[in-house]
Amino acid sequence: MTLRVWKFGGSSLATPDHIAAVSERIKDRRKHGDDIVVVASAMGTTTDHLAALADSVNPTAPARELDMVLSTGEMVAAPLLAMALHRIDVGAVAFTGAQAGITTTASHQVARITDVRPTRIQQELADGNVVVVAGFQGATETAEITTLGRGGSDTTAVALGVALHASEVEIFTDVDGVYSADPRVVSSASTIDEITYEEMLEFATVGARVMHARAVEIGDQYQIPIRVRSSFSDTPGTLICGNRTMETNQKVRGIAHNTDVAKVTVLGVPDRPGVAAAVFGPLGKHQINVDIIVQNVSHDGATDLSFTVKESDLGKAQAVLEEAARTVGARGVDTNRKVASVSVIGSGIQGTPGVFARIFETLASNNVNIEMISTSEIHVTCIVGEGQAIGAVRALHDAFELDRV
Amino acid sequence: MTLRVWKFGGSSLATPDHIAAVSERIKDRRKHGDDIVVVASAMGTTTDHLAALADSVNPTAPARELDMVLSTGEMVAAPLLAMALHRIDVGAVAFTGAQAGITTTASHQVARITDVRPTRIQQELADGNVVVVAGFQGATETAEITTLGRGGSDTTAVALGVALHASEVEIFTDVDGVYSADPRVVSSASTIDEITYEEMLEFATVGARVMHARAVEIGDQYQIPIRVRSSFSDTPGTLICGNRTMETNQKVRGIAHNTDVAKVTVLGVPDRPGVAAAVFGPLGKHQINVDIIVQNVSHDGATDLSFTVKESDLGKAQAVLEEAARTVGARGVDTNRKVASVSVIGSGIQGTPGVFARIFETLASNNVNIEMISTSEIHVTCIVGEGQAIGAVRALHDAFELDRV
Repeated sequence: MTLRVWKFGGSSLATPDHIAAVSERIKDRRKHGDDIVVVASAMGTTTDHLAALADSVNPTAPARELDMVLSTGEMVAAPLLAMALHRIDVGAVAFTGAQAGITTTASHQVARITDVRPTRIQQELADGNVVVVAGFQGATETAEITTLGRGGSDTTAVALGVALHASEVEIFTDVDGVYSADPRVVSSASTIDEITYEEMLEFATVGARVMHARAVEIGDQYQIPIRVRSSFSDTPGTLICGNRTMETNQKVRGIAHNTDVAKVTVLGVPDRPGVAAAVFGPLGKHQINVDIIVQNVSHDGATDLSFTVKESDLGKAQAVLEEAARTVGARGVDTNRKVASVSVIGSGIQGTPGVFARIFETLASNNVNIEMISTSEIHVTCIVGEGQAIGAVRALHDAFELDRV
Repeated sequence: MTLRVWKFGGSSLATPDHIAAVSERIKDRRKHGDDIVVVASAMGTTTDHLAALADSVNPTAPARELDMVLSTGEMVAAPLLAMALHRIDVGAVAFTGAQAGITTTASHQVARITDVRPTRIQQELADGNVVVVAGFQGATETAEITTLGRGGSDTTAVALGVALHASEVEIFTDVDGVYSADPRVVSSASTIDEITYEEMLEFATVGARVMHARAVEIGDQYQIPIRVRSSFSDTPGTLICGNRTMETNQKVRGIAHNTDVAKVTVLGVPDRPGVAAAVFGPLGKHQINVDIIVQNVSHDGATDLSFTVKESDLGKAQAVLEEAARTVGARGVDTNRKVASVSVIGSGIQGTPGVFARIFETLASNNVNIEMISTSEIHVTCIVGEGQAIGAVRALHDAFELDRV
């Protein structure tokens, strides 16, 4: 018997009618004799509403209490789906994250799964029931309620897939799969049939928020196949797995872009050891992630240090950096919100002749000015002016013939 | 140091502003050096919305999953109140029912508290924190989430008061206390200063839904004083305790009425042993409570059996009774929704000369026709036509001079 873990996002469970449609889909699959564990996200925009409510009570609320509030969205959606299954005569039981045996660290808001003890799930499956688990949440060893960060239901699904030895984890969402570029920007963008974990991670971290990055990491670590597909159609979607089985000469998989980017430059930084640590240490301490870092050539013992942060983190970053700049004796801090990142993604592109050249020729012939560059085995990311990002994505999608995927 | 258990109802926590006001009230009391455990109900009409949502998904939803959904209202309100306390620099920690150590039976929707293990609460109190507990809920020994029935947060508060040896449990609500009659009906109705548990139970069960009846029962069992008072004023409200300290010659405490009453008559019931069991057994099995029962004098070996049920239970009751009537060979079932109950409440009224006479004289002189009567040590309840109930309440309130309490 095949065990499937299915995860449904908030848009797939937004109303009682949506929930009924999902329950019918589950019933259909049950006819094939498969065991099914479903991970439910909160209905529609529930989590946003809960976060706004908490913010209105206390904008600097303790993370522990915030987790209690935020976790309730899934604690409503999961039993509702179980009820909908009962209504169409499918035996079903709902579990909170804690009841499902999902144990986490005590890092509220960003807890990590340390263990999954799926005893109760396995019992219910053995009794012939569908099990519906509240996503996005777990509990510490001392029964504190934790959440896994936004999008954490994907991580719940993949972790359960691993613990239950599922044959595949399916992430049902409101898009048809992973696209070769944002279809709102590139009308000829197509869904990708297969993609590696590493490639998917790039898409997840560089703006195409189809899946929670940590879910992909766990999938990679345990080599469990993950399929991203639409709740609203039967198309097969995108399979995320270890090795692409398709042709290997197509190195570039897609173009991702992200406008939630700001560029920061610390001006006139003394060029001596320990300065970078003095700048980036405090950012890390305030949970501000730095992405691309560029250090200019030193002049007269001082240099400019540029890097990108999330635009939404900029306010927090600025205060931290002005303090750090004073500490190291830098001249000041300059910021630019009007930038975006454009990434070309594909396994092994760094080792493929001609890819780099084509990227830069394409951008140049479209008059796109590159402010910063970062490359890895799997991506080339360029920071460009915000107004040029969409043109750059379209030109690159065209240059790499991605509509023919 | 005094330990207080305070319970706030949904109307006292309806908005972030209400929550802020409650947090200020708690802060004020903290200045006196008291330890405070707060029991929070769901905000405003949250529980109604959750119940309606569940009903729209499945009108006959499994009780276990229904409990998961309904319990979330308090799981939001409790941490929000803790956050509000943090905002004004009062250390506070929120607990779910399970975290607070409230263990219950597995009777979902109507679970009963079997044990309270307040270890974590006591630790947090020792650390100087206010503890906010989500009301209305608990967990079984196997970590299933349960709810205690509508109004169950009162029961949570009294049970915690007992377990923590609190000096008094205070139920903060949107009225000034327990009234001598519904103030919307009798404008001269006054709040009662002190009342016994037994008297309060009558008020709780006969329509004046100021408090959950089971909370009063637990208070009685452990003799813990309960004060019902307003969230929005500083008036002392009504103290519910074992023995009234005030004058004892005032036997009648108040007049309660209830329009959620329907009268059922099973016609032509054969007059033989076992018939009553055949009628009332199936009702009990369907969780339909029967209140007043009257059996008419037998004629020709057959009798009419009349009793009252909640009007809201009548639909369910009718189907059950028609089946039962066929079984026992009765002639049929007659129902009347247009009745109401009017109760005169006061300890020892049965033993007090003149009380009965005054009730019946008052009703007669106001042309109120009594359809059924039930009496006990503490109450006289008359079933009257629905249209006559308000007149009867006013006349009785006047006859027993209750505006002079």
